[in-house]
Amino acid sequence: MDMVFLPEEKLNRPGVGNVSILSQSGAFGSAFLDIMGSLGAGNYVSKFVSYGNASDINEADILEYFGEDPETKIILAYLEGFKDGRRFIEVARRVSLKKPIIAIKANRTAAGAKAVASHTASLAANDDVTEALFKEAGIIRAYTWDDLFDCMLAFNGSVLPKGDRTLIITDGGGAGVMASDAIGLLDLELAELSSEVKSKMESDLPSYYSVANPIDLTGSATADQYIYALEQTINDPNIDSIVYIIIPTPPAVDVKALMDGIKPFEKKVKKAITFCAIGGKEADFIREELEKLQFPFYPTPARTVKAIRQLTDYANYLQDHNAPFPKIREVAE
Amino acid sequence: MDMVFLPEEKLNRPGVGNVSILSQSGAFGSAFLDIMGSLGAGNYVSKFVSYGNASDINEADILEYFGEDPETKIILAYLEGFKDGRRFIEVARRVSLKKPIIAIKANRTAAGAKAVASHTASLAANDDVTEALFKEAGIIRAYTWDDLFDCMLAFNGSVLPKGDRTLIITDGGGAGVMASDAIGLLDLELAELSSEVKSKMESDLPSYYSVANPIDLTGSATADQYIYALEQTINDPNIDSIVYIIIPTPPAVDVKALMDGIKPFEKKVKKAITFCAIGGKEADFIREELEKLQFPFYPTPARTVKAIRQLTDYANYLQDHNAPFPKIREVAE
Repeated sequence: MDMVFLPEEKLNRPGVGNVSILSQSGAFGSAFLDIMGSLGAGNYVSKFVSYGNASDINEADILEYFGEDPETKIILAYLEGFKDGRRFIEVARRVSLKKPIIAIKANRTAAGAKAVASHTASLAANDDVTEALFKEAGIIRAYTWDDLFDCMLAFNGSVLPKGDRTLIITDGGGAGVMASDAIGLLDLELAELSSEVKSKMESDLPSYYSVANPIDLTGSATADQYIYALEQTINDPNIDSIVYIIIPTPPAVDVKALMDGIKPFEKKVKKAITFCAIGGKEADFIREELEKLQFPFYPTPARTVKAIRQLTDYANYLQDHNAPFPKIREVAE
Repeated sequence: MDMVFLPEEKLNRPGVGNVSILSQSGAFGSAFLDIMGSLGAGNYVSKFVSYGNASDINEADILEYFGEDPETKIILAYLEGFKDGRRFIEVARRVSLKKPIIAIKANRTAAGAKAVASHTASLAANDDVTEALFKEAGIIRAYTWDDLFDCMLAFNGSVLPKGDRTLIITDGGGAGVMASDAIGLLDLELAELSSEVKSKMESDLPSYYSVANPIDLTGSATADQYIYALEQTINDPNIDSIVYIIIPTPPAVDVKALMDGIKPFEKKVKKAITFCAIGGKEADFIREELEKLQFPFYPTPARTVKAIRQLTDYANYLQDHNAPFPKIREVAE
């Protein structure tokens, strides 16, 4: 049922998917839908409610509804204030044990509050209090639009990790360093390959490749070697998450062959995984192909690692509350 | 002279422009070039040096050369360490008074250092010391790939601001709130329109538009009104920078007409200006058109405001050192 008053040529309707959205801003909400309709096969959205200044139903009512809706597997929210903040947090505490809630709470500063006054006129909340309540209730807080979408793609496209041991696979030394720095700054752990996997890869790959973490396939990497590196590591029990970074410019990487090689992994990756490609047209091609498979794709190493951090935080929250991991991405048993 | 060994079909050569690049990572460097070749008309790059572990010339030599090169107006660097850090900082102190130097210094954490060991084997520097030295020498530090490109686009496409009074123009209340929050968080100032401009706009625009800061043209905004808002504010002496945010989904904004209306401003904006459009296909169209005009474009409000912060920091540095603003974007006198 489509009650959005914007014409099709202005707003690309997304296909049906896992994500339901509550937004206190109509324009922001419509931009969400428009972007989601443009991603990959576009199958992202389940329900969408733009509720403005909440004269009849409020944010807590909508969250409760989405929490009980079996078609909603991920909840996104854009909030400027609360009509019933106490109930919102209570509902969130229950719902977040079943499905991820990713929320922007804007109106954080005096400048933001001034802008809100002429928009929804919501009251500002103390931002430190919001931060603490969100954390306690298991709400994943996004601070920017990039954050919100990056998180949404991660939760929609990746399995949750069982721990924080993260492996980087790349063909670019610099990209590996940037990703490693992000792992250090975000307090994740560089995974150590198990000794069998390490020895096998060292004997199979050219000796000037670096079989460590990052696994650096260097500027000589081929599509087959990229696929091989994934194949060898996806069942290594020492690894919880994989950050897969492709710089497509080196001459030997055939991106078409690489993407054909990734397809059979669509339902095989039982760890957390996020992807990155950096560059122009070939990176765009990689993004499009990965979006079709609904794998989480990012344009920079830092965002690719940050997505793993967000998945890991939520996984830790569920484990701390003895809650099972929700099944969002389908994986073969 | 093109000595890059990567084939044209793998690496899109950028056209000639203002930016020279030194990179300690070949793959990262090639990805830079590839992206720059894909932006707008692609006219971005002047010189490119990938110098790896710097066996003959080092980072300070290259910086000095770029500093004296009249065709280089902006310098980008990717560094993992220093062969001659003292001289690099000395050179930077002189060069930064003439042209912006935007640098990533990776290898910031123990995890990063581990990755560097198998890449350029550069020694890690204490990151707080790097931070302080960069600031003192007027180097604009980028922390991520997004940061680096966002900065490059800002310095290439915008005039420097004379102060920190920033105006937001938008058609989306939520986007205005997010941008205002970013202004608050980044310690910029919300500009106050001068009283003549404010009264004129209030009498010319529908009464339910908000002529404040943000100027909120609401979901009823037309292309003409968007252009009008720019026209009225670009000469207001109370404004140093403009953040121009378009959500193209509302029905009355004809994005083609809006972009046609922006073209005559190509050489007219004497303040700092950054642009944002949020959404799918129409936002992509806006990005492409603005890139052709070499105006700085960003996909999110936070990044659009952050770019103004970076421009303002550098402008403040130059003013503190009694150095004139370099002319990078051409503006009619």
